[in-house]
Amino acid sequence: MEKISKIIKEIKGIDRAREEKAQQRLDLLTKPKGSLGRLEELAKKVVGITGVEKPKINQKAIIVMAGDHGVVEERVSAFPQEVTSQMVLNFINGGAGINVLARHVGARVVVVDMGVKTEPRIQNEKRQNFKNKKISYGTKNIAKGPAMTRNQAIDAIYAGIEVLEAEIRRGLDIVGTGEMGIGNTTVSSTIVAAITGKPVPMVTGWGTGIDEKTFQNKIKIIEKALAINKPNPSDPIDVLAKVGGFEIGGLVGVILAGAKARIPVVIDGFISSAAALVAFTLEPKIRYYLIASHLSVEAGHRILLEKIGLTPLFDFGMRLGEGTGAALGISIVEAAVKILTEMTSFEEAGVSRKVN
Amino acid sequence: MEKISKIIKEIKGIDRAREEKAQQRLDLLTKPKGSLGRLEELAKKVVGITGVEKPKINQKAIIVMAGDHGVVEERVSAFPQEVTSQMVLNFINGGAGINVLARHVGARVVVVDMGVKTEPRIQNEKRQNFKNKKISYGTKNIAKGPAMTRNQAIDAIYAGIEVLEAEIRRGLDIVGTGEMGIGNTTVSSTIVAAITGKPVPMVTGWGTGIDEKTFQNKIKIIEKALAINKPNPSDPIDVLAKVGGFEIGGLVGVILAGAKARIPVVIDGFISSAAALVAFTLEPKIRYYLIASHLSVEAGHRILLEKIGLTPLFDFGMRLGEGTGAALGISIVEAAVKILTEMTSFEEAGVSRKVN
Repeated sequence: MEKISKIIKEIKGIDRAREEKAQQRLDLLTKPKGSLGRLEELAKKVVGITGVEKPKINQKAIIVMAGDHGVVEERVSAFPQEVTSQMVLNFINGGAGINVLARHVGARVVVVDMGVKTEPRIQNEKRQNFKNKKISYGTKNIAKGPAMTRNQAIDAIYAGIEVLEAEIRRGLDIVGTGEMGIGNTTVSSTIVAAITGKPVPMVTGWGTGIDEKTFQNKIKIIEKALAINKPNPSDPIDVLAKVGGFEIGGLVGVILAGAKARIPVVIDGFISSAAALVAFTLEPKIRYYLIASHLSVEAGHRILLEKIGLTPLFDFGMRLGEGTGAALGISIVEAAVKILTEMTSFEEAGVSRKVN
Repeated sequence: MEKISKIIKEIKGIDRAREEKAQQRLDLLTKPKGSLGRLEELAKKVVGITGVEKPKINQKAIIVMAGDHGVVEERVSAFPQEVTSQMVLNFINGGAGINVLARHVGARVVVVDMGVKTEPRIQNEKRQNFKNKKISYGTKNIAKGPAMTRNQAIDAIYAGIEVLEAEIRRGLDIVGTGEMGIGNTTVSSTIVAAITGKPVPMVTGWGTGIDEKTFQNKIKIIEKALAINKPNPSDPIDVLAKVGGFEIGGLVGVILAGAKARIPVVIDGFISSAAALVAFTLEPKIRYYLIASHLSVEAGHRILLEKIGLTPLFDFGMRLGEGTGAALGISIVEAAVKILTEMTSFEEAGVSRKVN
């Protein structure tokens, strides 16, 4: 725990003075004041996060954390468990949704095995963007007991921190969170219910596309997991250990390390936001460093984002995960920063100002 | 009129059979069915528009049409009229919001003088992306009579058609609409009120940021323009001539020519949408070719999009115009098309399918 506490203590508030200066600059640019709406807010936020007057968004990465979940034996998902491992290979081979969208926005995809049950058979020449941080071969079934030990939860978070720190050494201006894990909407809903105290049906969705019977079963299993494990809402490590997942723990680490390093963290959908909620409960200042990309179809995502205090950038009815929404979000943040850094002022362009 | 009617007659419905095939392909890709929401809809739409099984979005352009408005003498705007011409120069020099966002998404900016009052002094070496299609040195004051003659309205539309056809010859896979013209929210609101019959206050907004007194005056002037000119709602050319603008007419031409050539047309905010409404009233099939990028802050934009039958992709609280929303929209459409054309299928990737 100590190694995580150290990182958390180093997370500071953002640079409000520089934010103010960014707004002053934005108001000098050749456009009516405030007319670029959320783009202006985003540009300001990135200045506040980085503390840099004219930030550059060159090096971008999506961290896709993968892990398996013992709870899938309760038939809560529409897809078989081996899909987690198969999709890890798909990410490595560049054919998944996140690969396409990350390429589109110029971000690299870093795939991390946090706890996949079947060993993904990755060719050596493709290991450059793969990290093995496996805590164990899948979590235990939360409907019967804790997903993992407290030490494993801490190790998962620390592994996420290490992954992000390695990416920072490679060069990193912005990071997006992504994940893959059959069954991970179930554990995410359990985390959200545990921390927010909201009724389970309010924070439980249809995942990859389950039927009504499976959905009703999913709710029952989540309620059972909460009853059996009794996670302590004011101890996020306890929640993560009892009803979480290894990839979610890894994302908590990515978020903490991003905030510590003053790098904007663009979060994806429901599962990434559940990780953000754990990080937020550990240290509320984390919210200053987070940008919510999209509103997921998954029930409870809005409640979850409101709890952290975030407003999503767009709502495309997406529910794929992997970091797909985060990738599109990164491109919007980059656009916003370029507005601040590349537009000319009224004076520079010789354009007349407002008359009244 | 004949030259425009010819183009309109050549606008066909979209390719529903190919759209179906695109959906079938989307359902084979390594993601739960429908889990990329609007991205999947957009990909399908582009296939339907182009009739191409695997479309490519390589060549992108934002057409920024500029024109001045006689009605500014009624003090309806917060900025002086010379700003139109100054901003044309700013576009040519690459320092405006649209330049920044177009560069970000890899689109060229084509600036068209449709009727700027002051001649923009453009250096010869910068004329490559500038077109002079000036119909006249600004429109007449709509509060006192028609903005232009019927022939000028037709000429403006035809000029827009010519501009787009020239861009198609340069290579064009997608086009975004943009505009600049001090006073053009006033004429756009007048067009929308004339065609939809909605009360003026419901479709009138704060433009570049006017004060309450100017806003009340703006509403009065629009009501006066409608009373004096009596534009015929079922004759969109009459509406354009009496209460429109040269840059709006130019955009009508761009939209018609885009639809005829089966090129997706991404529309920007309120003024671009007013042009789309004129085009839609000329030929309702136009809506199949249009993609609404963002919901503008400008009052009445939602009503206007609903009338055409479009749902905007995002709402960033923007109100700059120039094509800034369209530029961001183009990037999202491109991402959507890449999902269709670059993702692997379950079979190709060896990923197991849904079990129930």
